[in-house]
Amino acid sequence: MSAEDKRNKFLGVFPALVDELKSILSGYGMTEDALKWYEDSLNYNTPGGKLNRGLSVVDTYAILKGKKSYADLSDEEYFKLAILGWCIELLQAYFLVADDMMDKSITRRGQPCWYRVPEVGEIAINDAFMLEGAIYCLLKKHFRSESYYVDLLELFHDVTFQTELGQLLDLITAPEDRVDLDKFSLERHSFIVRFKTAYYSFYLPVALAMYAAGINSEHDLQQAQAVLIPLGEYFQIQDDFLDCFGKPEDIGKIGTDIQDNKCSWVINTALKLCSADQRKVLDENYGRKDAESEARCKHVFHDLKIDSLYLEYEEKTAHDLRNLIQNTDESRGFKAQVLTAFLEKVYKRKK
Amino acid sequence: MSAEDKRNKFLGVFPALVDELKSILSGYGMTEDALKWYEDSLNYNTPGGKLNRGLSVVDTYAILKGKKSYADLSDEEYFKLAILGWCIELLQAYFLVADDMMDKSITRRGQPCWYRVPEVGEIAINDAFMLEGAIYCLLKKHFRSESYYVDLLELFHDVTFQTELGQLLDLITAPEDRVDLDKFSLERHSFIVRFKTAYYSFYLPVALAMYAAGINSEHDLQQAQAVLIPLGEYFQIQDDFLDCFGKPEDIGKIGTDIQDNKCSWVINTALKLCSADQRKVLDENYGRKDAESEARCKHVFHDLKIDSLYLEYEEKTAHDLRNLIQNTDESRGFKAQVLTAFLEKVYKRKK
Repeated sequence: MSAEDKRNKFLGVFPALVDELKSILSGYGMTEDALKWYEDSLNYNTPGGKLNRGLSVVDTYAILKGKKSYADLSDEEYFKLAILGWCIELLQAYFLVADDMMDKSITRRGQPCWYRVPEVGEIAINDAFMLEGAIYCLLKKHFRSESYYVDLLELFHDVTFQTELGQLLDLITAPEDRVDLDKFSLERHSFIVRFKTAYYSFYLPVALAMYAAGINSEHDLQQAQAVLIPLGEYFQIQDDFLDCFGKPEDIGKIGTDIQDNKCSWVINTALKLCSADQRKVLDENYGRKDAESEARCKHVFHDLKIDSLYLEYEEKTAHDLRNLIQNTDESRGFKAQVLTAFLEKVYKRKK
Repeated sequence: MSAEDKRNKFLGVFPALVDELKSILSGYGMTEDALKWYEDSLNYNTPGGKLNRGLSVVDTYAILKGKKSYADLSDEEYFKLAILGWCIELLQAYFLVADDMMDKSITRRGQPCWYRVPEVGEIAINDAFMLEGAIYCLLKKHFRSESYYVDLLELFHDVTFQTELGQLLDLITAPEDRVDLDKFSLERHSFIVRFKTAYYSFYLPVALAMYAAGINSEHDLQQAQAVLIPLGEYFQIQDDFLDCFGKPEDIGKIGTDIQDNKCSWVINTALKLCSADQRKVLDENYGRKDAESEARCKHVFHDLKIDSLYLEYEEKTAHDLRNLIQNTDESRGFKAQVLTAFLEKVYKRKK
């Protein structure tokens, strides 16, 4: 099955989940206008992205179960795994609706951010809560009688809290309106991206598929985490790099990290290596909303050869992760191929 | 033990919970500034209220276990019940931080709303998430090995979602800036207050105490709910009544429901009974931010004798609830006295 077909099959599940959530509301006797509001919020905020996180739950499960293709999964099996995948997409929707409000963002996935839709406004906060709430409605309906139900609940609780911790550290380290590069450091960057991104985007899909496949020993979950958290960090560092050094025609957007005072790998690497004069340029120009200041920062980054440092980082990280993956203990049914599949999707990514 | 002593004993537990939550963060390697931020948010937003919800978890448990006084609870028993009580207070803190942002409120419990503290601002959204997250951290640490752990998790999920549903319906029925009394009705009011208030304030404390006391049959939970949800509605109707008809020196604030376009029991009762002329006055004056418009609405309310209608409602409701409570089936250990204690706290309340 092509990547496009996989995506469409996965997308095809979502309307049924929206219907299930709506029936929970009608079961409570909720009025039509509220049902419609929830449906609109679910449809506006959940399915529009790349869906990599959700899709990788199904892919990982197929690898763990030794299935060669999607066709080898029963319809019921596919549906349950797709629900877990959509639960990650709902978690992401919850974070994004809220992050966009906190970052005062304008657009998301080619449309206005939800809170900027005129009749929505601040109600978006409650809508974010209800996107998170959908996860536990769906888990209760479909996984309540599974032996690993409580594992799923705790996994979602833990990963949600870890992501919120990462978001907190990001918000207090790099407020958009107060530039203070003294707060930045590569260590802090590593912590932010591991917590804000790696747990929910890399570890969560694999852990969900592992529970569903019955591969749930603490040792195996640790093996997955030991690769997926640094891999998630590498993914975000790549994102940071591409924001500054990628071609707009490749990455599909114009980078704004410098003007937005983002605590990115690029600025943190520069801060570690720069001279006093270069530091002065960065202090005076980073996080300003004008193209000239941005160009001065980029000039420093080029002088410091951040791009070749990135290539070194990428090669070393990919090499270290490959070694780690090679030593995976498959004796309880966990498979190194799960991790390889993730690494190959990230390695040398240009967009 | 006096009410004041009970309250102080309960308050005395909170610092230990803050320490536990901080150690979870330090366990993750979180930086000092983030630890301090979380501690400040927990302390600013959680303990400042009346704590009735949290205290009633312990009180209900004591009644169910046939304990005459707090002194008959072991320290360990008290601590566990108090944690469940604080989990409701954390849930309430999560709602209030968010509601204040959505309602653009100015003060809460005699201090500026959290989002209005200068360095906080929109970060309050993530802080609200982390107040909710604290609940699941505490439940995991203290109740993981209990047979009713998954019941507690589902109860919190369900009640959280119900409250968010109530909040959604309230927000789309009575937006502060667009007055449309056609959207109002007593049925809608009943739905909003049951979902937004009654589940988490009345049913949740009792259900938590019931699980902890091992009284957990579906039949008993239903008996509790059948009284506590209408009782919660009565409590909120009383609140609505006092906002308009209470004396500021009794209720400790000046009511603002009329100016704020609140979907209150008072306006909904008036809409049901008013003449076409009175309706015109209400359409033209309800939800306006000036004292004259407010006075015109109050004039209609007085002409319609809303205050005597309220007294009738109160007497009838209290009478019906007493009858219902009298028929409680105590055969599995549930006790009518739990419900009587709640009713007596609400009946004829003046503040």
